[in-house]
Amino acid sequence: MDPQPLEQLLHAVRDGRIDVSKAMAELAALPQRSLGHTTLDTHRALRCGHPEVVFGAGKTPEELVDIAQALLEHHERLLVTRTTSAGRAALAARLPRARVWERSGCVTVEPEPRTEGSGLVLVISAGTSDGAVAEEAAVTARMHGAHVEEVRDVGVAGIHRILSHTQKLREANALIVVAGMEGALPSVVGGLVDRPVIAVPTSVGYGASFGGLSALLGMLNSCASGVTVCNIDNGFGAGCAAARINALVKEPRQS
Amino acid sequence: MDPQPLEQLLHAVRDGRIDVSKAMAELAALPQRSLGHTTLDTHRALRCGHPEVVFGAGKTPEELVDIAQALLEHHERLLVTRTTSAGRAALAARLPRARVWERSGCVTVEPEPRTEGSGLVLVISAGTSDGAVAEEAAVTARMHGAHVEEVRDVGVAGIHRILSHTQKLREANALIVVAGMEGALPSVVGGLVDRPVIAVPTSVGYGASFGGLSALLGMLNSCASGVTVCNIDNGFGAGCAAARINALVKEPRQS
Amino acid sequence: MDPQPLEQLLHAVRDGRIDVSKAMAELAALPQRSLGHTTLDTHRALRCGHPEVVFGAGKTPEELVDIAQALLEHHERLLVTRTTSAGRAALAARLPRARVWERSGCVTVEPEPRTEGSGLVLVISAGTSDGAVAEEAAVTARMHGAHVEEVRDVGVAGIHRILSHTQKLREANALIVVAGMEGALPSVVGGLVDRPVIAVPTSVGYGASFGGLSALLGMLNSCASGVTVCNIDNGFGAGCAAARINALVKEPRQS
Amino acid sequence: MDPQPLEQLLHAVRDGRIDVSKAMAELAALPQRSLGHTTLDTHRALRCGHPEVVFGAGKTPEELVDIAQALLEHHERLLVTRTTSAGRAALAARLPRARVWERSGCVTVEPEPRTEGSGLVLVISAGTSDGAVAEEAAVTARMHGAHVEEVRDVGVAGIHRILSHTQKLREANALIVVAGMEGALPSVVGGLVDRPVIAVPTSVGYGASFGGLSALLGMLNSCASGVTVCNIDNGFGAGCAAARINALVKEPRQS
Amino acid sequence: MDPQPLEQLLHAVRDGRIDVSKAMAELAALPQRSLGHTTLDTHRALRCGHPEVVFGAGKTPEELVDIAQALLEHHERLLVTRTTSAGRAALAARLPRARVWERSGCVTVEPEPRTEGSGLVLVISAGTSDGAVAEEAAVTARMHGAHVEEVRDVGVAGIHRILSHTQKLREANALIVVAGMEGALPSVVGGLVDRPVIAVPTSVGYGASFGGLSALLGMLNSCASGVTVCNIDNGFGAGCAAARINALVKEPRQS
Amino acid sequence: MDPQPLEQLLHAVRDGRIDVSKAMAELAALPQRSLGHTTLDTHRALRCGHPEVVFGAGKTPEELVDIAQALLEHHERLLVTRTTSAGRAALAARLPRARVWERSGCVTVEPEPRTEGSGLVLVISAGTSDGAVAEEAAVTARMHGAHVEEVRDVGVAGIHRILSHTQKLREANALIVVAGMEGALPSVVGGLVDRPVIAVPTSVGYGASFGGLSALLGMLNSCASGVTVCNIDNGFGAGCAAARINALVKEPRQS
Amino acid sequence: MDPQPLEQLLHAVRDGRIDVSKAMAELAALPQRSLGHTTLDTHRALRCGHPEVVFGAGKTPEELVDIAQALLEHHERLLVTRTTSAGRAALAARLPRARVWERSGCVTVEPEPRTEGSGLVLVISAGTSDGAVAEEAAVTARMHGAHVEEVRDVGVAGIHRILSHTQKLREANALIVVAGMEGALPSVVGGLVDRPVIAVPTSVGYGASFGGLSALLGMLNSCASGVTVCNIDNGFGAGCAAARINALVKEPRQS
Amino acid sequence: MDPQPLEQLLHAVRDGRIDVSKAMAELAALPQRSLGHTTLDTHRALRCGHPEVVFGAGKTPEELVDIAQALLEHHERLLVTRTTSAGRAALAARLPRARVWERSGCVTVEPEPRTEGSGLVLVISAGTSDGAVAEEAAVTARMHGAHVEEVRDVGVAGIHRILSHTQKLREANALIVVAGMEGALPSVVGGLVDRPVIAVPTSVGYGASFGGLSALLGMLNSCASGVTVCNIDNGFGAGCAAARINALVKEPRQS
Repeated sequence: MDPQPLEQLLHAVRDGRIDVSKAMAELAALPQRSLGHTTLDTHRALRCGHPEVVFGAGKTPEELVDIAQALLEHHERLLVTRTTSAGRAALAARLPRARVWERSGCVTVEPEPRTEGSGLVLVISAGTSDGAVAEEAAVTARMHGAHVEEVRDVGVAGIHRILSHTQKLREANALIVVAGMEGALPSVVGGLVDRPVIAVPTSVGYGASFGGLSALLGMLNSCASGVTVCNIDNGFGAGCAAARINALVKEPRQS
Repeated sequence: MDPQPLEQLLHAVRDGRIDVSKAMAELAALPQRSLGHTTLDTHRALRCGHPEVVFGAGKTPEELVDIAQALLEHHERLLVTRTTSAGRAALAARLPRARVWERSGCVTVEPEPRTEGSGLVLVISAGTSDGAVAEEAAVTARMHGAHVEEVRDVGVAGIHRILSHTQKLREANALIVVAGMEGALPSVVGGLVDRPVIAVPTSVGYGASFGGLSALLGMLNSCASGVTVCNIDNGFGAGCAAARINALVKEPRQS
Repeated sequence: MDPQPLEQLLHAVRDGRIDVSKAMAELAALPQRSLGHTTLDTHRALRCGHPEVVFGAGKTPEELVDIAQALLEHHERLLVTRTTSAGRAALAARLPRARVWERSGCVTVEPEPRTEGSGLVLVISAGTSDGAVAEEAAVTARMHGAHVEEVRDVGVAGIHRILSHTQKLREANALIVVAGMEGALPSVVGGLVDRPVIAVPTSVGYGASFGGLSALLGMLNSCASGVTVCNIDNGFGAGCAAARINALVKEPRQS
Repeated sequence: MDPQPLEQLLHAVRDGRIDVSKAMAELAALPQRSLGHTTLDTHRALRCGHPEVVFGAGKTPEELVDIAQALLEHHERLLVTRTTSAGRAALAARLPRARVWERSGCVTVEPEPRTEGSGLVLVISAGTSDGAVAEEAAVTARMHGAHVEEVRDVGVAGIHRILSHTQKLREANALIVVAGMEGALPSVVGGLVDRPVIAVPTSVGYGASFGGLSALLGMLNSCASGVTVCNIDNGFGAGCAAARINALVKEPRQS
Repeated sequence: MDPQPLEQLLHAVRDGRIDVSKAMAELAALPQRSLGHTTLDTHRALRCGHPEVVFGAGKTPEELVDIAQALLEHHERLLVTRTTSAGRAALAARLPRARVWERSGCVTVEPEPRTEGSGLVLVISAGTSDGAVAEEAAVTARMHGAHVEEVRDVGVAGIHRILSHTQKLREANALIVVAGMEGALPSVVGGLVDRPVIAVPTSVGYGASFGGLSALLGMLNSCASGVTVCNIDNGFGAGCAAARINALVKEPRQS
Repeated sequence: MDPQPLEQLLHAVRDGRIDVSKAMAELAALPQRSLGHTTLDTHRALRCGHPEVVFGAGKTPEELVDIAQALLEHHERLLVTRTTSAGRAALAARLPRARVWERSGCVTVEPEPRTEGSGLVLVISAGTSDGAVAEEAAVTARMHGAHVEEVRDVGVAGIHRILSHTQKLREANALIVVAGMEGALPSVVGGLVDRPVIAVPTSVGYGASFGGLSALLGMLNSCASGVTVCNIDNGFGAGCAAARINALVKEPRQS
Repeated sequence: MDPQPLEQLLHAVRDGRIDVSKAMAELAALPQRSLGHTTLDTHRALRCGHPEVVFGAGKTPEELVDIAQALLEHHERLLVTRTTSAGRAALAARLPRARVWERSGCVTVEPEPRTEGSGLVLVISAGTSDGAVAEEAAVTARMHGAHVEEVRDVGVAGIHRILSHTQKLREANALIVVAGMEGALPSVVGGLVDRPVIAVPTSVGYGASFGGLSALLGMLNSCASGVTVCNIDNGFGAGCAAARINALVKEPRQS
Repeated sequence: MDPQPLEQLLHAVRDGRIDVSKAMAELAALPQRSLGHTTLDTHRALRCGHPEVVFGAGKTPEELVDIAQALLEHHERLLVTRTTSAGRAALAARLPRARVWERSGCVTVEPEPRTEGSGLVLVISAGTSDGAVAEEAAVTARMHGAHVEEVRDVGVAGIHRILSHTQKLREANALIVVAGMEGALPSVVGGLVDRPVIAVPTSVGYGASFGGLSALLGMLNSCASGVTVCNIDNGFGAGCAAARINALVKEPRQS
């Protein structure tokens, strides 16, 4: 991200120390990052609604603390996903404003006072055991600027439960539907609303659920009505996708 | 099925030509069928509600006619499944009372006047393309003595459609639920009634439906509430299973 | 489940404060639960033969005790499935009438004196290692009001063993057949009786048994004769399905 | 959809012929449809941007024409997908304003003069053989009111090709990325923009592409950055999902 | 297969034209075939009980005739497998002593008068649709010198049928068990006899039989009792394996 | 296994207390076991070369000791497979003549002095990590009366190693080939000998070996030359199958 | 590929019309292609040894001729793969110097007189049915400048056949090993040479070969010794990979 | 590896104690190893660039030390892969010049002073979690004589990162590309260079990555451009394959 080589080259052009055709050749050979094409990353970091994200799985508590502290020197908002309980404990002990989400293993840091997000993202889950994934989705969407609400325990075997929330479903900018064994919930939700529906299969299940594959296939086969699908247990991905939609609805010309 | 060897043996015992311990040894060595253990098959043929069944797939029209005519010499009721259109035409032309079911490829023969079955078996299907399997299930159950009704086109993406039939669902002795891409319908039905629900996945579908595997897995993962599952496209098997339940409910001590 | 909005609306109609056409529009917009469609759940709880069920997997001993105690304030019969040994110990220590089923990990509570169920459900298992699933099925069916008997260790590699039980098989209202490596037993049983047969594949096995998939596929491919299948290791689901059939046979018009 | 029973009930309440508690009980037992919950379907038909859709696969040319003519009596916009060439020919011959899309097998009917959609949906495809699916997605999105542009032949093995479109990518409200053998394109696109990206795997491919499964898995594993996935070859589903997002961005409070 | 280089080398050693250490180095570099290790192939052709085998699939009728005629110049016994009907017709028309096996697509040529094989190989099949594979196994074993008998239509759903053949089963040197949907038959047979049992799954089946995979897995999971398995539909392989055992039993020291 | 009912029946026939036709009816209804059809099991136990077998997996050390002691009251030879190290220790401590096989987890008991088996069964393994399965196969075959030799570490990547054993390979009555990652060894062996070859895939392997599935598929696809296959890691099954062949070769008319 | 915008920008910098920081921002926004990074494609077309390649599958004969004629206006060497027989006929009739490869469906055009390639690439195939893929690999490598030789019909079931070619194997710069049912050949070859070995599984096979998956898995599991694998039936890919290695060996500093 | 029998035979020929034809017969019967065909192995050990390799998985620390010490008596270079931390510690403590590679679990021993390899092999990895596999590949290639450089963290979701290394990519004799969830990186790299590209999928990933299967399929489907693939996580295999290419480029006529 070092603009120096490019800057020096342009100064040399300006000062006549290098002619234009030679500069063009050198530009073509410069490593990509020096040319500023990585500004997407910079933009991302600067845009206030977006947090820095650390994928916690496979990192030791000490590594997590080091990475988090380094990031917080330059950023105000941080989302760490998939921490172990030891990782969560270390982050909570060492980061002043850390907030721990036990079910999903997320840890977040935000500036005080916390600002409420805007634009409704609704996270719907079928069973209590889908809670970890639903929380990861909800925390992710909220950290990306959305106002998030959750509707829980509305599996299709008791169909009246989801029906009783029909009005709320129709108010959301994006709906995340998390379900394990029965991958059918997104089909039902997709039939009740005309808003974008993002389905997340979970690995919860027994027997021939095959670690979420059964739910994944069920959800893919419901796509006709405009439902799209994330990877198994990928609450983070669903939260990001919903937040992209929500941000666009709130501010259609932001890019 | 020849009882002669057994009879001769017992006569020999009675007449003292062979002693008991020797007779016991010979009995142990007799082929199974001589002992009458095959009476199950005979019982099955005699019990009036049950048709003879011919699996039509892979048989030529001429073979089908030959088999059907041979069976109808000794039986009044015949069910031929999975016929080709040529097979159906040959059977219709050659068997006086043959009735052809175009969608499912079934052909049936019954004594006139046809007696209406009794005990409700309900066949529910999600999409119009599931019609062939649903019809095979319905014809099978009816030929085994059930009164059959069909509820069609009630997929979960328009959930109000199945809900409008709730009362009817609760009257059935057994419910067969046929669904392809969305294997979710049995879960919904199983949550609305306390009667036995038999799910049949169909191979209708596109993309990652894998010839019905997606629907099959979805249905297996709904079993917790008391739903059981048949093989993909196996309308015949579902019809038999529902008929077994229906017969038992109508006449609890028939065996 | 709050009937208030509906009640207020009807009072307004009665009192002429709102006209009929307006009331109809408001009714269409009311959340589903207010309309009483959830009475199914209520019915379920009231019907005396049915226990409350808690899925124990993934819950701490303390959570299990809390849930169980809360349910037992309003219900007399409780079935907890898939407990750990710690969970079982906690429930046994804290619930006065708790009964522990070690092989399957079930815990049950019933009013004293225990009433014997009625209508025979037969649970047949192929090998000793299928015992946990068979017990889960048996306990579940019994807690739903069935009289349950078990036939064990009758795998098809010693075919005479199942044959020696033929008479007993023919007396059952529903048969649950539990088998692991060799998914063939339901085919054999389905050929011996005309009663409903529910097959449960188990994950017991080695090599290419793929956690029960081999047995599952074998069972699905036997469906033609009227056998239906539950998910792998799903003894609970099989017990529910058998109990639905048994209840219907005992009392054909109960719903 | 008959409001009569409900109306009669409310009249009876108003007239004092039935008291409120009795009316509440009767309401709970009324079939769902009478309560007006099916208005969603009616809403859908009335909302002007949405076409009627006919899934053409498995229907004869004559059936297609019949269905299309019946729908066009009451609707102005029609989308028929997955037609055979015979089906396309029949529709083109019999429907005055029919427009045929050869690559994807779509047929569309719109009122003249055609109104240009608004809000950019971009359809990006990796190879020429992905063209059928890309066209189905594009036609679907356009028929649902979007302005659609296509970017073709930008597979990742020649990475500079997609990079040269970066500016255009950043202008879209939703991006549909269609790719077969190499399911990697959505990852690249998702890294270049912050808008919602919908990936569609295609069944084009050879060897171990397994009818699109390889591309599907690749796309699911890119979800972390906010990409969501449709079923294999499901251009229609992707078009619907993109159109939902686009409609919401254009008119955030329309539902 | 040219022994010349080796012979020359040894002559050179004998004549002292090359010393031993140099000869050892040259030997190590000689191509394998010169050393006579390929005599196995020659042995195979000479051993009278073994036919020449041509795999007919993918060869034109003319190619088949050419190959067969070339082989019959030097051999008396020929087995062609997996021919098309055109291939069978061509071979029957052009080879004087050709014998056609319609169900399996085999064509055989033997010297007249045909000698009856010896040592019993029993081929057992579950359903009529397994007949092609069973015939391929039987023809193969017979062409390799075995006396072959067939037992047909003894699926496990009618278990008494196989039991009635128990005595015959116990007389065979090797048993080939061919079964499709229900891969259970080898387990039953393996429990009735102590002779080697070779299982052949067939691709016959519907739904989740997956082209024989279901039967294959079922058979593999029965191996504990000493059953071994061939590839799906591989009647030829099973016939070869049974013939190897049979030959060894008849003539224990033949190799 | 109680012959009493049968004996009483025959006495009644002999004494004229029951006539023949009535006796025949009662015989058909008698449970199978009373008729002596279970003599197969008895034969099995009596035949001196065969051990009692206990499958050790899933049994506690105490259970193993109890079962083993009970069996040794009536039998001289015992094979326990798949023990844990604790199980092995318990058996070794409590059974006087127990012999422990550490690699495979087998424990055997035989009468002293041990008699050497006869008839060569050769166990060939590709890598050192296949040793546990190879030992299980070898111990099983030896306990069933075979003389067993092992050839180790002869994978196909160093093809000269197996070739150097060609003479030994040709002396065996049956060859068991154990291989993991490279399932190719049975093809090579099957091409070198004309004796029965039994292939055992092992779950050893990494990456896309899928717990032995890769080796299993490789072995099944080599079957054409007369190789048959056991389940993954099923050394016991291979040992039984080889012993069946070996016993038959040694004593062709033993059954 | 238009350098103009970049040139204009640099001129503006040189002339002081735009300052350096502004120029840096504009550079970051320029489309990638203007910067010359796409020169790879140009290089590829110019380098004389490389042909233009057309993937023929899915293209009509007329389309193939059009594309080929257009390419031959600017290039001398052309490779068309996967043509139908109609496509081959059309190309042969319309392109003066076209050469048709019947087995693989390739068509090639080269300048006359044809120059022999250099650097040995050896294509080894296991069975005659692997010939199409082997020829595609050989033609591809030859068209990319290699001298190609083929070794055919050297499956591992007759291991001496491949051994007799050991010397030739050791002379190749790269070895392509094509095999279907038995994916073992690359392991054997990889153990005989120290040169790069590229394995190509073919879809030829029966039963559980699963369209080449079995061979693919076998080959992947042989990788330890330095074998790498191409997609099923991908002779073209293997030819390209071998040609890359061969070109590098011949001219190590060419890039 | 004992040349004695061969030597004695040749001496007997030389001395006339045995005639040539008898000697030829005896030669054919000699075990393979005596003939010197195992010289490949010897060659391998002698060729200075190649280390002895020990596969550490499944071996105890003590076993590893014993094997390593034995090998180091006769060899100077040793590579131990897949050690546990205990294994690494034991080797480091007991082998004087051992060097431990923590991420990959490799341990190496080389003569001092270490000689730098030559010929560039580039190891490119997509994410930090692919580091273990990348290091195994790098260490393996270096131990086989290559000069190795690594490029890390260049996944396709941030495509500019790999583009900035284009120049370096074009200098390598072989490129190893290691990637987990997104198997797309090899396609991008293969499009940027004309050198051999070896792809290694890693098992890193979540949800539907299936232990690397998703990445493996993605990589196989990129093969068209000349990319070849190793087994999942098989850094060692990729290192060997790259080293074979590199050695050949450096010294084209070495074999």
